[in-house]
Amino acid sequence: MSVNLSVFDAFHQINGLKIGFSNAGIKQTERQDLVVFELADSATTAGIFTQNAFCAAPVQISKAHLQQTRTQYLVINTGNANAGTGAPGYQDALDICQTLADAKGVDVTSVLPFSTGVIGERLPMDKITAAIPDALKNMDANKWFEASRGIMTTDTLPKGTSTQFEYQGNTFSISGISKGAGMIKPNMATMLGFIATDAKVSKEILQSICLELGEKSFNRITIDGDTSTNDSCMLIATGVNDAPELTDKNDAFYGVLKDQLEKVFICLAQAIVRDGEGATKFVSINVNGCANNAEALDIAYTVAHSPLVKTALFASDANWGRILAAVGRSNVKDIKVDDIQIYLDEVCIVENGARAQSYTEEAGSAVMAQDELSINIHMGRGDATETVWTTDLSHDYVSINADYRS
Amino acid sequence: MSVNLSVFDAFHQINGLKIGFSNAGIKQTERQDLVVFELADSATTAGIFTQNAFCAAPVQISKAHLQQTRTQYLVINTGNANAGTGAPGYQDALDICQTLADAKGVDVTSVLPFSTGVIGERLPMDKITAAIPDALKNMDANKWFEASRGIMTTDTLPKGTSTQFEYQGNTFSISGISKGAGMIKPNMATMLGFIATDAKVSKEILQSICLELGEKSFNRITIDGDTSTNDSCMLIATGVNDAPELTDKNDAFYGVLKDQLEKVFICLAQAIVRDGEGATKFVSINVNGCANNAEALDIAYTVAHSPLVKTALFASDANWGRILAAVGRSNVKDIKVDDIQIYLDEVCIVENGARAQSYTEEAGSAVMAQDELSINIHMGRGDATETVWTTDLSHDYVSINADYRS
Repeated sequence: MSVNLSVFDAFHQINGLKIGFSNAGIKQTERQDLVVFELADSATTAGIFTQNAFCAAPVQISKAHLQQTRTQYLVINTGNANAGTGAPGYQDALDICQTLADAKGVDVTSVLPFSTGVIGERLPMDKITAAIPDALKNMDANKWFEASRGIMTTDTLPKGTSTQFEYQGNTFSISGISKGAGMIKPNMATMLGFIATDAKVSKEILQSICLELGEKSFNRITIDGDTSTNDSCMLIATGVNDAPELTDKNDAFYGVLKDQLEKVFICLAQAIVRDGEGATKFVSINVNGCANNAEALDIAYTVAHSPLVKTALFASDANWGRILAAVGRSNVKDIKVDDIQIYLDEVCIVENGARAQSYTEEAGSAVMAQDELSINIHMGRGDATETVWTTDLSHDYVSINADYRS
Repeated sequence: MSVNLSVFDAFHQINGLKIGFSNAGIKQTERQDLVVFELADSATTAGIFTQNAFCAAPVQISKAHLQQTRTQYLVINTGNANAGTGAPGYQDALDICQTLADAKGVDVTSVLPFSTGVIGERLPMDKITAAIPDALKNMDANKWFEASRGIMTTDTLPKGTSTQFEYQGNTFSISGISKGAGMIKPNMATMLGFIATDAKVSKEILQSICLELGEKSFNRITIDGDTSTNDSCMLIATGVNDAPELTDKNDAFYGVLKDQLEKVFICLAQAIVRDGEGATKFVSINVNGCANNAEALDIAYTVAHSPLVKTALFASDANWGRILAAVGRSNVKDIKVDDIQIYLDEVCIVENGARAQSYTEEAGSAVMAQDELSINIHMGRGDATETVWTTDLSHDYVSINADYRS
């Protein structure tokens, strides 16, 4: 089940980027579970990665390779995360890169590996190395939909978006895909995101954009507060567009491109929440009037992670006391209860430390019955604002996660 | 459903403390939902309270009254928390104290109010003030069992324990009751605890013991990471025992009494976890080898609050990768993955950043199938140790909390 998430299949191709896929049979025998991206010589690549201390072998290698040289290939498998596999798992991920590098005559450091799936099991290396040549045989610029399906794990639907825009006579394209449905929290999640544009962008500027937009999108979603060992989001600029290279943040094109990319980042991040495990609601938690962004985020996440708030959302129960209690137990010091107002969409539920005078159960329940709603918290202690997106906690979440390995 | 929690009904009476109860009909018409404690003139009282910024009116008043004068009465209602009720709710709680004070001819500040139940609704004051005289009519030292039932909310069983010990020819008694089953987290929870002994103890020492033991017991349990607006734990020393007053921590009796009380505090705190909403397992999370206690607690709570760990526990699934990922996403900096060992009871599941060589799925599953188990995490970076107690996350948890108000 997902919340207002439709299958996206009209991708613009990104010149300078080809996609291949094949069936390695890692966890399921019939899935196209191996995806390869091939980048033009003119491409630059940026990435952000999980902050989990137990970050998986492919994450360690991708981070290192990204620093060392120009990226030419990305290779992604689903079904097995190659995390918690120690030194042998690290060697496995490196061997995958080497297999692809040998097949294409490139340096091993120009290949970035990505894995998602079960933690703690060794990769079936024979299956994966056998499937790489198959993937390389069918490389095509028009395979974004297949790629979006190829990287799914517990996702119920593939996730992607695509856009085009004009600037000074040139047409630019952006396409992106993401995956992830549980183990989702700030600082990345069991999520992978791949966004590409044909613009030509210097590596420094691309990395800066990737960091900034990742912070505003993938690092603002939470389903269950758990973060994964494998999260990675890659931003690729293939550089084959005729427009000149973007090398300066003062160039007007910088803002234009960033705005377009931001919509894609946020769409892909929100798609992960919409497909949250067991999700029946898509909830925006907006916290404003804080002394600084850290405390706004702290409050937003405390509400977003509260099992009591989440089960009330599942029940469509306007149990505003649970929201109030969650705000009250955040780490923010010296909260002045009387200064706080809390709204469900436009309905004021709390003011002056108590239920709002104007509040009616009917008005609150009407908002809670919606499948998309916002919880708006005004702290009255400053100007800082943050938003996070989350879901409810349903029976299906428990079923999905109690049964995942069986 | 509860985990190895049996009804305790053999309470030692505590001389110098009488209990009365009556039916106010606050939420359910047939419950004895109002309980009054009456303390001897020789009694001292200590308390610890919720740290939630939205602490309820009765908590604000109890904290203030406890500072102002000697406590003579405690009045506890279930069914309504009188939280999030603003200034009118504050006046309601004060009026309850005044009603009881007038009936007994004592000062209003010698009465401490406690409430538990739904947040955000005004108390039915007519019903409560009408029920107070009834409660005062049947005061009796032998009503601990009735009190343990009177303070229940979503608890499936009443919670209490009682003990006696000898010291230098005197026999001392301790009895205690607690309530709470959800919204349970460090820094207190939707829990109430009342522990009494007939020993004579100075107020300063009693408060010091209450703080120390509260930290080791009620502040080390978590069910869902939510803390309530009403949590209170009161320690009463009626002082009617013939033994001399305890006024000095260097007195050998200090250690003897504290050890006896510690068992009672921990038993009552664990009883709350055993009766955790939807609980099918009782889990001790032991973290040792940390640089300091704060990081040991941070790791313990990150694991204890992980919905993925909790659903794996519910499924009896030895999905150790989820434990490892939770440790990795704690706030502890510079974690050295290779130094960490994780055990389920005595079964080593993780070492050197990967699944332990000796681990077998059979051995892990055997531990996970138990209804009581421990997750033991050795960080290898110091000497600090902490333990927290928690439960799994089951379908029943969702059902209970999605349906609570309906």
